[in-house]
Amino acid sequence: MSTPLRVAVLGCGVVGSQVVRLLQENGDDLAARIGAPIELVGVAVRRLDAPRDVELAEHLITTDAVELVTRADLVVEVIGGIEPARTLILSALENGASVVTANKALLAEDGATLFEAAEKAGRDLYYEAAVAGAIPILRPLRESLAGDSITKVIGIVNGTTNYILDKMDSQGSGFLEALAEAQELGYAEADPTADVEGFDAAAKAAILASLAFHTRVTASDVYREGISEVTAADVASAKAMDSVVKLLAIVELKGDQVGVRVHPAMIPRRHPLANVREAYNAVFVESEAAGQLMFYGRGAGGAPTASAVLGDLVTVARHRLAGTKGAGESAYAARAIQPMGETLTRYHVAIDVDDTAGVLATIAGAFAEHGVSIQTVRQEGRDQDAQLVVVSHDATDAQLAATVAHLRSMDVVRDVTSVMRVEGIDA
Amino acid sequence: MSTPLRVAVLGCGVVGSQVVRLLQENGDDLAARIGAPIELVGVAVRRLDAPRDVELAEHLITTDAVELVTRADLVVEVIGGIEPARTLILSALENGASVVTANKALLAEDGATLFEAAEKAGRDLYYEAAVAGAIPILRPLRESLAGDSITKVIGIVNGTTNYILDKMDSQGSGFLEALAEAQELGYAEADPTADVEGFDAAAKAAILASLAFHTRVTASDVYREGISEVTAADVASAKAMDSVVKLLAIVELKGDQVGVRVHPAMIPRRHPLANVREAYNAVFVESEAAGQLMFYGRGAGGAPTASAVLGDLVTVARHRLAGTKGAGESAYAARAIQPMGETLTRYHVAIDVDDTAGVLATIAGAFAEHGVSIQTVRQEGRDQDAQLVVVSHDATDAQLAATVAHLRSMDVVRDVTSVMRVEGIDA
Repeated sequence: MSTPLRVAVLGCGVVGSQVVRLLQENGDDLAARIGAPIELVGVAVRRLDAPRDVELAEHLITTDAVELVTRADLVVEVIGGIEPARTLILSALENGASVVTANKALLAEDGATLFEAAEKAGRDLYYEAAVAGAIPILRPLRESLAGDSITKVIGIVNGTTNYILDKMDSQGSGFLEALAEAQELGYAEADPTADVEGFDAAAKAAILASLAFHTRVTASDVYREGISEVTAADVASAKAMDSVVKLLAIVELKGDQVGVRVHPAMIPRRHPLANVREAYNAVFVESEAAGQLMFYGRGAGGAPTASAVLGDLVTVARHRLAGTKGAGESAYAARAIQPMGETLTRYHVAIDVDDTAGVLATIAGAFAEHGVSIQTVRQEGRDQDAQLVVVSHDATDAQLAATVAHLRSMDVVRDVTSVMRVEGIDA
Repeated sequence: MSTPLRVAVLGCGVVGSQVVRLLQENGDDLAARIGAPIELVGVAVRRLDAPRDVELAEHLITTDAVELVTRADLVVEVIGGIEPARTLILSALENGASVVTANKALLAEDGATLFEAAEKAGRDLYYEAAVAGAIPILRPLRESLAGDSITKVIGIVNGTTNYILDKMDSQGSGFLEALAEAQELGYAEADPTADVEGFDAAAKAAILASLAFHTRVTASDVYREGISEVTAADVASAKAMDSVVKLLAIVELKGDQVGVRVHPAMIPRRHPLANVREAYNAVFVESEAAGQLMFYGRGAGGAPTASAVLGDLVTVARHRLAGTKGAGESAYAARAIQPMGETLTRYHVAIDVDDTAGVLATIAGAFAEHGVSIQTVRQEGRDQDAQLVVVSHDATDAQLAATVAHLRSMDVVRDVTSVMRVEGIDA
């Protein structure tokens, strides 16, 4: 066997401590699978005396991450956030190390800088753990489907919001109630903004779109709506249509443009994504030859994320021993981003109206005026007033938004009680 | 860009014609993703004048596969079966070509010979398409989970039998009726033996076990039962337990032994595999760190299988350009195969009994005599007689089989109407 490969781990929180545990427990298997032993040379932490979930020899712990990366062949970055993670990754690559990271925020904001540095250094930068935790999804998109043409990816890529929406669906609770429950159980953070407002999912959508369509996509390219305005009425309305509300990250190829969006949407219960419960994640992929695929598993948590990190570590270690590297960033297609207003979507709209003769014709006229064709209308009379539930055919998001604004201004309309996009009807 | 890589395709049937189509249609994308253009140098067929699903220049068609492999850098083998596929693959490797194959039967019978030849030649032998068609499952097992410890894989890896069992479940039809429908729709062959008796699934189980547990497993190591004896009563009995019957390929690590088996089993409807409908495939993976994962998609068909072949082709082409190869066979663990009799399973047994006082105690005694503990008993009285439905706890398969034989010999037992293993209860 070769001389040991020196591994440095940056960060020893929920994920880092599990990476360290697996490195220590599975050393023999890792050596057999790589073809060389792995030697943990250090773990960089912020505070030496912080409590940790893993036993670690004292001489391995350091607060000097900058120095640590200079003496490693393989660097695992699980600090998260933009800085100091970016500087440390760039420094590791410059020093000739291969890097494995789980840092979705950094990749989605400034991946290009990292990929260029890796290319220049002739080293690997792998990041399977950055999207959907333990679920192998980036490698299938990059490699398994490399001979196919991906047309659309729909992901449930944020466990916190899926947990909240699942509870709203199964218990009929409102958003704040379900959020409080998620926070109590540790599925949501004290400040839940990054999750519930869709920032986390948007970063993952950018990464998925980049890989699926060989185009550089950053977080700022992603249209984003969170779930904080999803109401119990929306969820009930979905139920009445035998559907369920999910926060979806959708990336698709439309002509030569790439659509990238994150928003809540209703999907039919028979869709494979509808059965993704609690904090699980899943990614649904449509491609020209393979057809429909789905990948399902744990999207977060220390051990699941560490599993993905270690898988990458084995790959980059093998490459290192073979004196080679994997394919780098693939952005050859350089497609444009489709503006959200031009994206084809369908809307579900629930409207409280005066129960007068001809009200349906008036409402239908408003849709027609904006060029939106109606797929179904359900009318529910209730004494003095009535509710109309309309599901449109595909139209541009701008047409649909204009229709809703128009509806709100109409005299016969008492209230627009629910507006939500609908996905997965054709699947 | 480099000089073109020469590709030979052996076989131009359902899969081969789709491989050729994708090579021709996606040439520019493939070149961008590989870093060099692909040149199709020939397609080997059995009969020059056979009808084909793809347009192909006449000079590319040949019946001389032996000669064709001598002038290719990359050889795609989609003939299937043992010979001449084996000889051609060995010859291709000896001639310095990298090989991509979809040939599960050959890999499960004599993979070792092929892997050794690939190792000796310093070339890649990739075979993602051999298991579960378009679903990326081998690459995740080999690479994404390489830093984790896989404990169990449960696959629905045969579309024909899943289609038949799904129809039996949804329509209440018997096996022969559902088989006839599958044959009419092209989901089952005129001679359905390889599918319905589990030979196809057993080959895939052997491949999955080899990869999951780093051990050489061949088709002859696999315990195999097909679905031809699954009755409408079995399916109804499963329904009564809110379960469904599926043909499962199960590979698991028990101590330092590998269990490998294919048989029909009842699984609860809430299990992710229970919702795999029609001819779809899915593979459920349990590992120490990642937890539960599932991969879902089309397991057969020309285009889906071709997607997997092309994904491998891109990878081995990149390796070739980089002057390297991927990790070869990993059989370092060399574990023993667990005999089926020692495998822990649970049984569902439905028994028609005399409706006399104490019959339940008598039946329970028979289970106890063989050391089998009972999890649940459901008793359904019907006039003169009664039916007992027993689900056991885990016991060895030998103990459970002995219990059933004992039951059949008992005076109070009129008939054992359904015996089936139960899986996925703890999932």
